[in-house]
Amino acid sequence: MIKRRDFLKKASVAAIGSSALITACANEKDNQGPAVISDKKYEWKMVTAWPPHFPILGEGADKLAKIIESMSGGRLKIQVYGGGELVPPLEAFDAVGSGVAEMCHSASYYWAGKTPASQFFTSVPFGMNTQQTNAWFYFGDGLKLWEKVYDSFNLLPMPAGNTGGQMGGWYNRKINSLADYKGLKMRQPGIGGNVITKAGAAAILSPGGELYTNLERGVIDAADWVGPYHDYLMGFHKIAKYYYYPGWQEPTGVVELIVNKSAFNNLPKDLQEIIRYAAKSYQSEMISEFENKNQEYLAKMNEEKVNILPLPDDVLTAFRKFSKEVIQEITDADNLSKEVYESYLKFQKNISTWTKIAEYNYLGS
Amino acid sequence: MIKRRDFLKKASVAAIGSSALITACANEKDNQGPAVISDKKYEWKMVTAWPPHFPILGEGADKLAKIIESMSGGRLKIQVYGGGELVPPLEAFDAVGSGVAEMCHSASYYWAGKTPASQFFTSVPFGMNTQQTNAWFYFGDGLKLWEKVYDSFNLLPMPAGNTGGQMGGWYNRKINSLADYKGLKMRQPGIGGNVITKAGAAAILSPGGELYTNLERGVIDAADWVGPYHDYLMGFHKIAKYYYYPGWQEPTGVVELIVNKSAFNNLPKDLQEIIRYAAKSYQSEMISEFENKNQEYLAKMNEEKVNILPLPDDVLTAFRKFSKEVIQEITDADNLSKEVYESYLKFQKNISTWTKIAEYNYLGS
Repeated sequence: MIKRRDFLKKASVAAIGSSALITACANEKDNQGPAVISDKKYEWKMVTAWPPHFPILGEGADKLAKIIESMSGGRLKIQVYGGGELVPPLEAFDAVGSGVAEMCHSASYYWAGKTPASQFFTSVPFGMNTQQTNAWFYFGDGLKLWEKVYDSFNLLPMPAGNTGGQMGGWYNRKINSLADYKGLKMRQPGIGGNVITKAGAAAILSPGGELYTNLERGVIDAADWVGPYHDYLMGFHKIAKYYYYPGWQEPTGVVELIVNKSAFNNLPKDLQEIIRYAAKSYQSEMISEFENKNQEYLAKMNEEKVNILPLPDDVLTAFRKFSKEVIQEITDADNLSKEVYESYLKFQKNISTWTKIAEYNYLGS
Repeated sequence: MIKRRDFLKKASVAAIGSSALITACANEKDNQGPAVISDKKYEWKMVTAWPPHFPILGEGADKLAKIIESMSGGRLKIQVYGGGELVPPLEAFDAVGSGVAEMCHSASYYWAGKTPASQFFTSVPFGMNTQQTNAWFYFGDGLKLWEKVYDSFNLLPMPAGNTGGQMGGWYNRKINSLADYKGLKMRQPGIGGNVITKAGAAAILSPGGELYTNLERGVIDAADWVGPYHDYLMGFHKIAKYYYYPGWQEPTGVVELIVNKSAFNNLPKDLQEIIRYAAKSYQSEMISEFENKNQEYLAKMNEEKVNILPLPDDVLTAFRKFSKEVIQEITDADNLSKEVYESYLKFQKNISTWTKIAEYNYLGS
């Protein structure tokens, strides 16, 4: 830790009008001649869990590949395959592990069947928001633990984008209290699905392509999708009566770039760094795009008089309790999940105090 | 805009269990031989507005230089100079414009004397938070306008980090209502200083190095600095009675990387891209470090029973009104400021609706 006196000494240098301490120009210290850059060219494949060129997410995979290519001066070219073009979306993880492709752009909770601990790296019901989650990744143990979880699969994960906080979903039944979840048929994947099940609802798996028809025809009563932008494109506002918030089930949505570890280790150091920082740069790029589109499409929905409502307090209180129970079941059954979630929960508790003081109070002011 | 039918068609491909559409491997399409990478080596200087190795900010300049060097395979080496080491901190802008250094790591509101419009790119009292500001930069007109404002100085700006939302400052006088600002001597730079002046306070310029002594000896009654981490290092909690929130005067704190435009244009394309994405990657890096340190040091302050209080509602209401007046004076006097702030304000109004629905409601749930 820096002592106050040293800190003050340093701080005083930055004061307005402080005199310049001209130091020797360091340029001349380091004359090692031209840098040695291998001109070896790599051609990689990136598979994705998204439909080809899917708004923001699939487009994000395309852009990320371009960023890497341009920073590498064309030495690392990446051909992007939409979900189903080279392998089915939910086989992307195995495809990268086995080397069918060198990279994959997806979301870690798709791989819960491979390793349950992966679920905690995308989003946790009533968990951290985007800014908090990034702090856990980069300055808590988040990314280190994620690397540990993927290590035995010969995979290296990196956060590479984010959907931001999502919405609570579309309902054709009004939710006045927790009792209204009894018998409700809702498309709600992941941990959230187990949570509404505890409230007496039926969590239905419905592929994206059938969601609209299923909701329109009453096969399901409710559906969780993403946020205003993607939901508007799906047309849910035309067939569902109520749009609920907040998105308790997914308060952030981390997108991952997975790299085959052997392929990564065989790259020269500069290309490794280019991949790492391209992924990191895409973190602020994607959340910014989501936030911008979501505000624009929420405004459209308001103009079109969509009925946007808060979930009742008793529902949120019960769901918070159920979420704890569901997570407890996961961590009881899997030691790696326990290790990851303990780190997550501790970080969440600590940072929430700060977020409430600063961000939350400011937003409410 | 994507039509719903196309969107559904795409979405269905991502469905669980959809069959693979194996496409021809695109690897073979593009055999242009090895990439041509210039091995020309560049040695640049980066001046900064921070004391040398100043926590997170000065350290951030050091790390950013390393990131660029490692991604470039050593072709672009950047020597970092703390404030005062090559030029005084507040001459960094001119130093880069004139080519004394090729880069500068600083905050745009330091350059209000050069061009008043620069103030809107760091933070605006009662303005957007970090996530909203980034959306304005990358998907609104924010960054385009910033480039326009710096263009006549031969400078190219890039957001390259963020302090996150700050605190309201340290006070030795209790603030029960707006009237308590009458005669208050407070260190409060920038637009915020003009705001408290309207409430009858005296905005005192006090260099960082003298702040502690001035507050301890009663030369000033209050001081705004950064947030829990930097404030704790300064030791303010030992000599000030109250620590107020929220940080209405600086709800975000954008850090900039400025590049000399001619030097930038003379770089090969891959090195230009490396600088751009290094800066962008540092966006999530720095805010994460700030958030992590601030939560840790806020916890320390809570343990040490620091008196942390909210500013009264009537103060915030009045300050909001005064802020509008101060900004009006700036935009009335300068057309470029008017253009920038109109874009800023419109974006803020639109995105705030979404932030309230999603982020704010979630944080309060």
